[in-house]
Amino acid sequence: MAEPGWTPPLRDELQGIEPYGAPQLDVPVALNVNENPYAPSPGCVADIAAAVATAATTLNRYPDREFTPLREALAAYLTREAGVAVTPDQVWAANGSNEVMLQLLQAFGGPGRTAVSFAPTYSMYPEYARDSVTGWVAGRRREDFSFDLDHAAALIGEHRPSVVLLPSPNNPTGTALPPEVVAPLATMLREHGGGVLVVDEAYAEFRRTGVPSALELLADHPNLVVTRTMSKAFALAGGRLGYLAASPAITDALRVVRLPYHLSSVTQAAALAALGHAEELLGAVAELRRGRDELVRYLREAGYDVAESDANFVLFGRFADRHAVWQGLLDRGVLIRETGPDGWLRVSVGTPAEMDAFVTALEAVRDAIGDNGLVSEQQGAHR
Amino acid sequence: MAEPGWTPPLRDELQGIEPYGAPQLDVPVALNVNENPYAPSPGCVADIAAAVATAATTLNRYPDREFTPLREALAAYLTREAGVAVTPDQVWAANGSNEVMLQLLQAFGGPGRTAVSFAPTYSMYPEYARDSVTGWVAGRRREDFSFDLDHAAALIGEHRPSVVLLPSPNNPTGTALPPEVVAPLATMLREHGGGVLVVDEAYAEFRRTGVPSALELLADHPNLVVTRTMSKAFALAGGRLGYLAASPAITDALRVVRLPYHLSSVTQAAALAALGHAEELLGAVAELRRGRDELVRYLREAGYDVAESDANFVLFGRFADRHAVWQGLLDRGVLIRETGPDGWLRVSVGTPAEMDAFVTALEAVRDAIGDNGLVSEQQGAHR
Repeated sequence: MAEPGWTPPLRDELQGIEPYGAPQLDVPVALNVNENPYAPSPGCVADIAAAVATAATTLNRYPDREFTPLREALAAYLTREAGVAVTPDQVWAANGSNEVMLQLLQAFGGPGRTAVSFAPTYSMYPEYARDSVTGWVAGRRREDFSFDLDHAAALIGEHRPSVVLLPSPNNPTGTALPPEVVAPLATMLREHGGGVLVVDEAYAEFRRTGVPSALELLADHPNLVVTRTMSKAFALAGGRLGYLAASPAITDALRVVRLPYHLSSVTQAAALAALGHAEELLGAVAELRRGRDELVRYLREAGYDVAESDANFVLFGRFADRHAVWQGLLDRGVLIRETGPDGWLRVSVGTPAEMDAFVTALEAVRDAIGDNGLVSEQQGAHR
Repeated sequence: MAEPGWTPPLRDELQGIEPYGAPQLDVPVALNVNENPYAPSPGCVADIAAAVATAATTLNRYPDREFTPLREALAAYLTREAGVAVTPDQVWAANGSNEVMLQLLQAFGGPGRTAVSFAPTYSMYPEYARDSVTGWVAGRRREDFSFDLDHAAALIGEHRPSVVLLPSPNNPTGTALPPEVVAPLATMLREHGGGVLVVDEAYAEFRRTGVPSALELLADHPNLVVTRTMSKAFALAGGRLGYLAASPAITDALRVVRLPYHLSSVTQAAALAALGHAEELLGAVAELRRGRDELVRYLREAGYDVAESDANFVLFGRFADRHAVWQGLLDRGVLIRETGPDGWLRVSVGTPAEMDAFVTALEAVRDAIGDNGLVSEQQGAHR
């Protein structure tokens, strides 16, 4: 047997760290990881299976390293969705947008360089920085989660980051960034160290009517990267396909750091098949946007603070003891996410039946623990 | 349009680097990337398609982060293949063994640490080190590509590497490592800095009868990691499934650096289905081993130097101008790999028909350019 005493030489900064990830609990109503509640249709499933069956006949061969047909389909989709011409050489993809982010930091971050984001925001960003040995600086958002351009300018001037990571809509707050923020930020970065601005549009398809995508700014900003994912709008969280649009100089740089053959033939085939069902899938997105707006309305009428949301989730509060509310909901079969600033909880938008179950459970929790411990003096700040 | 003058802030060490990868040329006979020439059988294809169809019905949900059924199946397969009990908590997997290697270096390498390998060896190792910001030291093998334990001991004493990467069989030479090398090396590493020994057994299933797997040493060496892949023996290069067996302390460390949900539901389903066809696939491996031994015999009889091979490829030479031979073969529709030490070429073992085509082309090239420019005074050194 192994002698005692040897322990793996884990890097110091990884000691004692728990693996990232929401609890994978088996509950009747899972509204915790912003999944799309609508499973792929039988037609979409059949197309995915057929595409994979075709790909499987040559699985003994390595995949197309350039995944050209997939890049073409993604470019065509973005062109339609955002009304902005995107070409295949502007598109790059990887196994989930988390691999896209890691590749961006491997290419443009690294030792001696700094990445910046603005809290509260996606909790994986500092992990990507850590994994790519990039310095990490967290700025802040305003109290109402809107973006403070003056604060950002000061931070960029001070740290001259090589990468700025900025989700729009933001996770976990749901806040979209207007072009009046993104454009000057991209310009500012080019002028102060030449950094890359990554606008993470994982939830872009859920934005409200009239809210533009940062894709509209691509042509004017060579240092702008807009990332997307098929996990949310395309109901393909299990398929792991993240992608981005940017100038070809940026996609070329990512080719240097990507692992060879990083995107399997099976992944390429499944994603291509799902893209063929874009219209149908975006129909479900419209349904979810309506559900989101209804949820926001309900929660406000019920007296909660609710952040403006352009995503498929809603941040609401504020609670003196949010964990008690989260646990009360879980005890009633509804799993949401205890994340974001203290006092707030995040709930994903599910089917109408799931939303009914959530509302019923929330009302039961409120009955059980008084007024849910609402921090009443703060109510209304985010209406 | 974008103003001129901005260039992406690519890390200095990536400037001017071409993306890794063999040319993906469309040729009649591709013997350049050690693929398995036998496509999955219709039954295997049907099972993969059916498994993916089932997985596709819930693709809106994130994958099982722990891929438990796949780890169980891989553990059972290793137990059968190597005759050594391997448990699911000793198994880890990722998108190709290159992602497995990157995760190992992200956990155990990093700034201020050193990884070591011994040349000539797999050309991706220094890239993994670069991507994880790990120092890189290349030792050497003996002239006949066998392993020099004294040289390794000196190097380990000097650099105290946190990771040693050692393929067995070695790529591109085909050389397997005996337990008399692996065991003392693992002990030596534990005693000099506590590093991890990674034995890369991507080609292990092709080893000759009587050549043991390093899996036999796992129980005695907590710092030993044995990596495998489904790309070669399982004819699943397009499926991208690499994996490893090691002590649970090591697999736990990898959970900290893996990207969440790195292994898609589709990948998990396809790999599980292929594992169900292990017996059939290993039948093709036996065929390829016979083909490899025949190829070695032919090349030696034809007067070439040929390295001992326990893999599905053969390194042969030596040529005064190997590029001319490579080009001559390509001109005749046969693509092999110009890699390894100067003067040598690497050819993958294909079907009998592909081997015939290779031999015919090689003889034509020899006719065309005299004796192929064989460095005759070196002949015999590797017999």
